[in-house]
Amino acid sequence: MTPTDPNYEQKTRESFNRQSVMRTIGATLESIKPGGITIELPFNGQYTQQNDFMHAGIISTVLDSACGYAAFTLMPADADVLTVEFKVNLLRPAKGKLFTAKARVVKAGRSISVTEASLFSSDYGEKEVATMSATMMAIYA
Amino acid sequence: MTPTDPNYEQKTRESFNRQSVMRTIGATLESIKPGGITIELPFNGQYTQQNDFMHAGIISTVLDSACGYAAFTLMPADADVLTVEFKVNLLRPAKGKLFTAKARVVKAGRSISVTEASLFSSDYGEKEVATMSATMMAIYA
Amino acid sequence: MTPTDPNYEQKTRESFNRQSVMRTIGATLESIKPGGITIELPFNGQYTQQNDFMHAGIISTVLDSACGYAAFTLMPADADVLTVEFKVNLLRPAKGKLFTAKARVVKAGRSISVTEASLFSSDYGEKEVATMSATMMAIYA
Amino acid sequence: MTPTDPNYEQKTRESFNRQSVMRTIGATLESIKPGGITIELPFNGQYTQQNDFMHAGIISTVLDSACGYAAFTLMPADADVLTVEFKVNLLRPAKGKLFTAKARVVKAGRSISVTEASLFSSDYGEKEVATMSATMMAIYA
Repeated sequence: MTPTDPNYEQKTRESFNRQSVMRTIGATLESIKPGGITIELPFNGQYTQQNDFMHAGIISTVLDSACGYAAFTLMPADADVLTVEFKVNLLRPAKGKLFTAKARVVKAGRSISVTEASLFSSDYGEKEVATMSATMMAIYA
Repeated sequence: MTPTDPNYEQKTRESFNRQSVMRTIGATLESIKPGGITIELPFNGQYTQQNDFMHAGIISTVLDSACGYAAFTLMPADADVLTVEFKVNLLRPAKGKLFTAKARVVKAGRSISVTEASLFSSDYGEKEVATMSATMMAIYA
Repeated sequence: MTPTDPNYEQKTRESFNRQSVMRTIGATLESIKPGGITIELPFNGQYTQQNDFMHAGIISTVLDSACGYAAFTLMPADADVLTVEFKVNLLRPAKGKLFTAKARVVKAGRSISVTEASLFSSDYGEKEVATMSATMMAIYA
Repeated sequence: MTPTDPNYEQKTRESFNRQSVMRTIGATLESIKPGGITIELPFNGQYTQQNDFMHAGIISTVLDSACGYAAFTLMPADADVLTVEFKVNLLRPAKGKLFTAKARVVKAGRSISVTEASLFSSDYGEKEVATMSATMMAIYA
């Protein structure tokens, strides 16, 4: 996958840094590649559901940002990225010290891009905690 | 829709109160009816994305809890509720002072329940900010 | 909902008639309103799954066309409609003599429209057999 | 992935053969592995949408059967398989002489299994026409 914007890494990092939610929940941008993003999220007891697992919505937060920025790396320099929709499947209880969201672009388009992501946990190794399938849209200023 | 657990309101409130994420983001449980839940979330600049709208994942957090507890109200007393999957469509930028997530059970089953929810904003009136379609599962201890 | 193309009914009927799959499986276009479509499908033993219920994919076929044409009624005259994605929840076994797919536009946009549909059966009355949530896209020639 | 039913291949083939829709649209079961299914579907002008591409619902039909039987291979001998929900993303126009649906189990559970599938076309090589994410359920007699 070839980025049309040679500045893709910097623009992605800058946009990520503008997402105050990432800072608030403690998520960090671990890697940026053309069409691929990795975000890490440490466990945080402030964001759990009734059984002390991370809430599915918080998991979705990092999966959605990972998918959106994976699509963003391949978008032209004048585009912003917007989520059209996503679906999340929860496979295992979201426990463990550290969560890693890995997203990749399945198809990049001028307007619509389709992405997929998996969430892993330090407790489960290669077994996924959750998967996301997401549609992203390029918005031209 | 008839709850099998006459104690449905209290058990729902207690489980909601155990979700630390609700307290942390400032979400409150506004109403509990058999098969229907309303959750409110005030705008909070700590949970925004790159354009200062509430992040889609935070929106999903209240929609998911609304769907889950809508299903939970109709579950037997010995069941806990677990999200199997959800899909979210983002219709409008998530801006406005106050967001309201309204969920309802489409079909209640002993094991699987299907639910739907809409997110409204004080900025848009009757127009939806986002919709969720979610599958919930009863877990028996 | 106001159609921008005054010819919306005729263009929708013509496009529906070009879908050979509708003719083949016996589906008919029952009603066309701005932002709303009803399609009927009689039970047909040639399109069943292993338990002699209509296959989920055949159900999806009429739900998808209903959603697509619901969005199409509100699109400009020079636009064609394309499905971006859909999600289907199966609520009850797809049995009964006659199935009715009812779709409505949740949000119409120049490029992206979001739609929802329900499938009913003559066996179940008001209870839904399946629901669809779908994203449609306008393609300009 | 280890099948609990040593007879997994025969039971899957028998159930597939009971799906009259597969015979009617000309779909064939190309391979059965524990947790993995391949189904082929030749292009058929009787099942097209308004632009003479295969209809998204027909594509979903083979993707859904592929996902369902992928999960079925890992289920106990006394279980039948039922689709809870699926989401389909359409990536490219469904044209080409031959379509191939490849499904795999992401997580097998006693009750709920999560699966994914891709649809390929002889026109596009390794590029996907569509993707499915599906939840399957084991039903015990």
